[in-house]
Amino acid sequence: MNINICLIGKGIVGTSLIQLLYQKKKFFEQKFNLNFIVNSIFEIDGALINEKGINLKEVLDVGGDFRNLPYWRKDAKAIDLISKLDISICIEATPTNPKSGEPGLSHIIEALNNGIDVISSNKGPFYLEYNRIKNLAKQNNCYVKFEATVASCVPSLGIKEELSGNEIIGIKAILNGTSNFILSRMTAEGVDFPLALKEAQELGYAESDPTLDIDGYDAAGKLVILANELLGWLKTIADVKVEGISKVTPHAIELAKLDGYVIKHLAIAENGELLVEPRLIDKHSPLNISGTLNIVELETKYAGPIILMGRGAGGFEAASAIINDLISISIKRGYTA
Amino acid sequence: MNINICLIGKGIVGTSLIQLLYQKKKFFEQKFNLNFIVNSIFEIDGALINEKGINLKEVLDVGGDFRNLPYWRKDAKAIDLISKLDISICIEATPTNPKSGEPGLSHIIEALNNGIDVISSNKGPFYLEYNRIKNLAKQNNCYVKFEATVASCVPSLGIKEELSGNEIIGIKAILNGTSNFILSRMTAEGVDFPLALKEAQELGYAESDPTLDIDGYDAAGKLVILANELLGWLKTIADVKVEGISKVTPHAIELAKLDGYVIKHLAIAENGELLVEPRLIDKHSPLNISGTLNIVELETKYAGPIILMGRGAGGFEAASAIINDLISISIKRGYTA
Repeated sequence: MNINICLIGKGIVGTSLIQLLYQKKKFFEQKFNLNFIVNSIFEIDGALINEKGINLKEVLDVGGDFRNLPYWRKDAKAIDLISKLDISICIEATPTNPKSGEPGLSHIIEALNNGIDVISSNKGPFYLEYNRIKNLAKQNNCYVKFEATVASCVPSLGIKEELSGNEIIGIKAILNGTSNFILSRMTAEGVDFPLALKEAQELGYAESDPTLDIDGYDAAGKLVILANELLGWLKTIADVKVEGISKVTPHAIELAKLDGYVIKHLAIAENGELLVEPRLIDKHSPLNISGTLNIVELETKYAGPIILMGRGAGGFEAASAIINDLISISIKRGYTA
Repeated sequence: MNINICLIGKGIVGTSLIQLLYQKKKFFEQKFNLNFIVNSIFEIDGALINEKGINLKEVLDVGGDFRNLPYWRKDAKAIDLISKLDISICIEATPTNPKSGEPGLSHIIEALNNGIDVISSNKGPFYLEYNRIKNLAKQNNCYVKFEATVASCVPSLGIKEELSGNEIIGIKAILNGTSNFILSRMTAEGVDFPLALKEAQELGYAESDPTLDIDGYDAAGKLVILANELLGWLKTIADVKVEGISKVTPHAIELAKLDGYVIKHLAIAENGELLVEPRLIDKHSPLNISGTLNIVELETKYAGPIILMGRGAGGFEAASAIINDLISISIKRGYTA
């Protein structure tokens, strides 16, 4: 079946998605009877639009020069065109303003108001307006999926469907690879925070402005989404008690080590409360992971902790999560029949 | 909706399942509109049968004295009655003969031949006759689910549905808690294999005959099921190259440690081959877990390793996996509508 989709945001995630959609075209057809037709790709200053379907190979081949393609429409805006194009699924992959959730929030609302299913790799709208988005989706009989927003490719949200016979009662997680990398380096090498941060920046793990990572706001946003989805809460990022890692010293790490502990930047949901803060954990704890990995420990009622781990960032990682969501919605909608 | 089910095998898993079915009755009704009616519980020497539904509380209250209940039918056999009772889902939880897969294999075949969906916590039939069972299920338009057979409550099979946009290309796992406990103790304390085994037996982690655990056959059976489900292979346990852990010495562990390695009993599926054997892994590898936990590392094409971890054994752990399967089949069958 032909499914028309639009992509908003052609950054690393958006471009990786275009590549996977192109590469896996045969797989979608043969395995799921699905033919995804991308009819619009929106950027901040315009859009590629071809209602019969954009030639993805052509877009990939021209790389950064996509604005020279004949179907580039300067100044075309997603918010104006979502309702006018024939779209079944809208993929939102823009960068977020962490205070307003825009422009993604408006795109998502506009899509749902027009009965279009939504997939997002953009977490801002969900840690700010989770309840509003979910209600709007329900009112409009739409699906809204956002696996890529938390721990990227690790199916930390989808896992819920595989645990429906159990009961998830709490969450402990490491959701920011940058701050985990910094603490891991401080622990392994005894270096201080500024040096470890500099190293993370040189290796490309930390942004030039790493504030959201090291202050814990990035992890806090993901924690809100996890708790709302898996525990049925209705929190926003304002409900999270957040403390960053910049005050952690080599001395504190050394003291912890003497007693068999390590310091990790944990995101915790338990007893109705959300917090992100440096915590001591036993060095043998499964949560003691090094480097930039993400880990999510779900405390369950009938089976103790169930743990998921993997890369928490990266273009193809996020794109593969978006594709899972695409297939999941397509199956639920009966597009694969 | 009312769903009639039969349970074959009232051991630790079966009894835990009865308890969960009883405890979660309201949850099933309210959340899924499901009313599971257990109309038969088979043991080796007879069965509890009540076509209107067995009072599970009564069965739990009498504990080991269930043979005194008025609806106990001595010598009643599952293989004779599966076709005669009104059953929608058959749950197979008997102990397996590792050579023949019996009696579970015959129960599963009989159920499928009668158009009854199957859930199994019994792995023998699946590492011996996977292809036959899957084909029979297909011919009869039946579902067959067996999440509990591998890593118990950890959704190592169900995860596939959450990774449909990715591609799983290899598996590395620790699938036997007993042998992992023994190696962990040898590593931490420097004790030799016989002593660590004795300790595992005293703590109740190892059977009085621990052969299947320490020789690797238990892990090999689980690996076959993982590889067939996740990689689409059609292997049996005879295809696995198996080496146990009894030859691992404290000296070998010490030598490995000097270079930053630990010895783990790994189950590996890669390049078309299956093997279970002691292997050196980097001590910082996520696979370096201690104690009786199970871990499954899925190597994916687009997102590197995705790892699942949790308890690999226990009555409620397995029962919660069976309940996931029950709900999953009920949703697919439209029983929840």
